[in-house]
Amino acid sequence: MGNEFDLIATYFSRPAPPQFLGVGDDCALLPVAPGMQLATSTDLLIEGRHFFADVDPRALGHKALAVNLSDLAAMGAQPLACLLGLSIPRVEPAWLKAFSEGFYALADAASCPLIGGDTTRSHSDVLISVTVFGQVDARYALRRNAAKVGDDVWVTGTLGAADVALRLMLNTLAPDPALLEATRPFLEWPQPPLEFGRKLAGVANAALDISDGLVQDLGHILKASGCGADLDYAAMPADPVLQSLPPAIVQEAVLGGGDVYQLCFTALPARREQILALARQGALRVSRIGCITAQPGLRVKDAAGQLIHPLPVGFDHFG
Amino acid sequence: MGNEFDLIATYFSRPAPPQFLGVGDDCALLPVAPGMQLATSTDLLIEGRHFFADVDPRALGHKALAVNLSDLAAMGAQPLACLLGLSIPRVEPAWLKAFSEGFYALADAASCPLIGGDTTRSHSDVLISVTVFGQVDARYALRRNAAKVGDDVWVTGTLGAADVALRLMLNTLAPDPALLEATRPFLEWPQPPLEFGRKLAGVANAALDISDGLVQDLGHILKASGCGADLDYAAMPADPVLQSLPPAIVQEAVLGGGDVYQLCFTALPARREQILALARQGALRVSRIGCITAQPGLRVKDAAGQLIHPLPVGFDHFG
Repeated sequence: MGNEFDLIATYFSRPAPPQFLGVGDDCALLPVAPGMQLATSTDLLIEGRHFFADVDPRALGHKALAVNLSDLAAMGAQPLACLLGLSIPRVEPAWLKAFSEGFYALADAASCPLIGGDTTRSHSDVLISVTVFGQVDARYALRRNAAKVGDDVWVTGTLGAADVALRLMLNTLAPDPALLEATRPFLEWPQPPLEFGRKLAGVANAALDISDGLVQDLGHILKASGCGADLDYAAMPADPVLQSLPPAIVQEAVLGGGDVYQLCFTALPARREQILALARQGALRVSRIGCITAQPGLRVKDAAGQLIHPLPVGFDHFG
Repeated sequence: MGNEFDLIATYFSRPAPPQFLGVGDDCALLPVAPGMQLATSTDLLIEGRHFFADVDPRALGHKALAVNLSDLAAMGAQPLACLLGLSIPRVEPAWLKAFSEGFYALADAASCPLIGGDTTRSHSDVLISVTVFGQVDARYALRRNAAKVGDDVWVTGTLGAADVALRLMLNTLAPDPALLEATRPFLEWPQPPLEFGRKLAGVANAALDISDGLVQDLGHILKASGCGADLDYAAMPADPVLQSLPPAIVQEAVLGGGDVYQLCFTALPARREQILALARQGALRVSRIGCITAQPGLRVKDAAGQLIHPLPVGFDHFG
């Protein structure tokens, strides 16, 4: 999202009452029972901005829910249920059937039943609004503002593949059908680490999901926590499918590429063994990519120890 | 919503787990604490379908939240918090300021703080997605399927004014500036009876808010409860501002007009005094308009005792 557009947020940033977490984290938190908080998040997906008009509707149903479940994972919350608002210009049974199947398949896998919603006719575009609910122990919710100086910085999964798929589809990278085939599932079928995120509650200090790019999203943690970070590019998990690309393009995708829906989190060094064990249990890749510093700002060193400058901060592909 | 469009719902009507109320009521209910349920609802509002592009943005901010709070009132739930998804084609500070002021003013009045959301850029239309949360004693939630044979049927407020405003603005009624000025606040600034709805929990049996028209919405209660109703048109609270209109037009607006955001509810005759007392406390008009019958179907008699046929079932003004 462009800087100009961030202005919108200024009109909706009035502080919420203290018992709610309020605007700005992955989820809002509502105190609903002693010691337990309800985590909730809503995302609005628009045809042509967040997905292509000709995307496989089954993948779209999956992704609409996945990007919201990713927000729950980033709070350490267990999914409870979801709501779906769907607005479409015309009734196409085959499209609706596939969309609903993709949505329900992930809802089942994540134990996150669809319990309500709203369907309306739109003028011309498909619009999707998903709201998810989860629960998290009030002491352990993974807030953005809880990173501590000395924490390790970690990421789950791999980086860069979804961004390369998007650039191939937008023709801002040279055509490469084999690479598109290899990267496209990362863009269209994101697999946020839901169970791992839940288990991080009480283990990690701060977390968020990478939707706009590692540099930009980690920046949110640093700003909210009042600290900085030193990162090591060589430790970052560039996806292996990108190895045929020039290193500069890979670097931009790894640092600035969005649509990842993996987690970036910070934790005390004393937690390393525990985190690696949790990852092994979930057959999930985790990478320790740097540490939190008292010095503000984000610095990334390349393999030669040189600071990468300027850092790609992601960009609005549809902008 | 047209019949064809109801087909959409068939793709999303898989039953939710039994502890949730699930798709089809005003709100979904989540069991979040012993004896207490979280009521939640989401609505997607689209420029040109649900509001005019040139509507006062302050009124739009109010209405976007009001129609969702109305769903909470119709469950007997107390508002807790809300989420806002807003998608706009360009950043217009004056518009955003007015929209947010209208939204926040109602959020304050209803003790329903805005705690999170999502803002994005759209192609050309304004899209608004609001999700509300409330809480209700699990025993007393006002479900649609709980009307009992012999119950009185009640409505709050008045009927017909919002529909007439909309028809004047769409030029499907002859121009009448004075009537437009008198009716337009009903369309643009709906005032759902939030506190009264909350107090109905434990008093009424079934309730919903009138958004698509009395006949169509009461039909949802009858279908879900497996019963019918006999109504008396002369007892229905046509809004006094409509008195200059021909009776046939008033009748269509009262029975079929949407955008009302008042409650239709059913309750035992033994509750009459209690309901009238609650209405007096809230300076709210309530009208007893008929009774629930074992015989299926909805019958409305006019002042002469003749059945009105056919019944206006509301229509999609933007269809």
